[in-house]
Amino acid sequence: MAANNTITFYDLALSTGATISPFVWATKYALKHKGFDLDVVPGGFTGILERTGGKTERLPAIVDDGEFVLDSWGIVEYLDAKYPDRPVLIPHESVAATLKALDNWFWNAAVGPWMFCFCQDYRDLSLPQDHEYVTHSREKMLGRKLEEVQAGREERLPKISAALEPLRAALAQHQWLGGSSPNYADYRIMGGILFTASVCKTPVLANDDPLRDWIERCLDLYGGLGRHPGLFPLFGLEQREGDPDLFNRAAGQGGIYKRNTGPESTRAETQRITEGMKK
Amino acid sequence: MAANNTITFYDLALSTGATISPFVWATKYALKHKGFDLDVVPGGFTGILERTGGKTERLPAIVDDGEFVLDSWGIVEYLDAKYPDRPVLIPHESVAATLKALDNWFWNAAVGPWMFCFCQDYRDLSLPQDHEYVTHSREKMLGRKLEEVQAGREERLPKISAALEPLRAALAQHQWLGGSSPNYADYRIMGGILFTASVCKTPVLANDDPLRDWIERCLDLYGGLGRHPGLFPLFGLEQREGDPDLFNRAAGQGGIYKRNTGPESTRAETQRITEGMKK
Repeated sequence: MAANNTITFYDLALSTGATISPFVWATKYALKHKGFDLDVVPGGFTGILERTGGKTERLPAIVDDGEFVLDSWGIVEYLDAKYPDRPVLIPHESVAATLKALDNWFWNAAVGPWMFCFCQDYRDLSLPQDHEYVTHSREKMLGRKLEEVQAGREERLPKISAALEPLRAALAQHQWLGGSSPNYADYRIMGGILFTASVCKTPVLANDDPLRDWIERCLDLYGGLGRHPGLFPLFGLEQREGDPDLFNRAAGQGGIYKRNTGPESTRAETQRITEGMKK
Repeated sequence: MAANNTITFYDLALSTGATISPFVWATKYALKHKGFDLDVVPGGFTGILERTGGKTERLPAIVDDGEFVLDSWGIVEYLDAKYPDRPVLIPHESVAATLKALDNWFWNAAVGPWMFCFCQDYRDLSLPQDHEYVTHSREKMLGRKLEEVQAGREERLPKISAALEPLRAALAQHQWLGGSSPNYADYRIMGGILFTASVCKTPVLANDDPLRDWIERCLDLYGGLGRHPGLFPLFGLEQREGDPDLFNRAAGQGGIYKRNTGPESTRAETQRITEGMKK
């Protein structure tokens, strides 16, 4: 049992003081979900190995009663196994499986592309001692200068917003990805959005995005855990001429699930698709 | 309680006898998962309203003890609520939420694009009395001739295959989307794959696709429910010059989840991204 209900949490933060890594953000929410207080060890990208006494080069990492636990998924599995009587993060193994698929989709559709849009800002916002590491390692990964990768983001941001329909479809039907209360599915996806909020010097979603309600509720959880003053506004992206719709305005009208309640419910569509058909 | 353990199932089939709709396929698996025998009412697209005595224009629909139940999600919710002591289809409300997101992604990434690749075959394979309805309604929806929509599919099929990484990532870590046993998450996604198998006159996935193991196991369930002789081979797509990789061959080497087990596990990557950095 964590002494004084407190778990040591190694933060990975920018010069603004805001947590940066999607995985570290998700872990912060996971620890709060389990009801723990955090003993935060501050820091950035360089010196993780030294800060953790040689235990890891990467974060998240936590220490519970002297035991190091590594990796965002590893920590969540540990917390649910060690503290089964506290609110569960992954209520069924099927949630783990579907969430991993969703997480992979969201990374490719949103987090990765947003990183490309803000990689220069990301470097500029990092702690001074991290500038060289962030610049060098990201340029190695990407094979180009950060300035070149970031350029042209105004063309890409509307397409990233438009690609988030799967999330909108689910959250139009359920209050949380956890169902009637949040769980690690919410925190995992929200981790990528909080990463973005930590670097987005220009907004990434429309003011009236249907995701806004869920995002604001996630930010409010645990005494406003996500409302760090170092974060940038997510909402305020404007659709320009030639941009795709930032979200599907027609989706709310029909509804994808449980739409067929009998012939009345499908008549208009039938009329439209059979119009002009013989007999 | 369903009389004689049997539920009436309205089929939606092609001239091959194979079920066509993704939603009807998913419902067929759901009923078997719950342990029911099916009293199959055969038929195609036209005449659904007449076959169901005016109850619905669309399928799936079932009749349990004289009660009509409509809509694929409606049927699943009905089955779990009415028969809670039988194997559960959706074991937690969080599975419903994450599956709806996944379902929306899979429709946009795969089922929709596959429909475009096979819409002419689909019409040609439909029951003779359905040809006019399928042609007219689909051309109304798509705004073009089916022949034009289908043309050029050899360019599109490799990209659809490549887009399935989220599913591969989850199934590399879990035996089923249901976890250690299948549930409606598997049947829902597999429904779209079975739709494709019912019309794909040319294969859509590589012979060595990592999804193959899960797909074959899904086909084997319930006495080989998915091994209908009218289905076409899904596997056998060849990568041509200029095509993207049909799946990510590097994914199996790293592993996305629980990769950080300490400095040893990240050293090679660190070396690669810091190579040439000062100090």
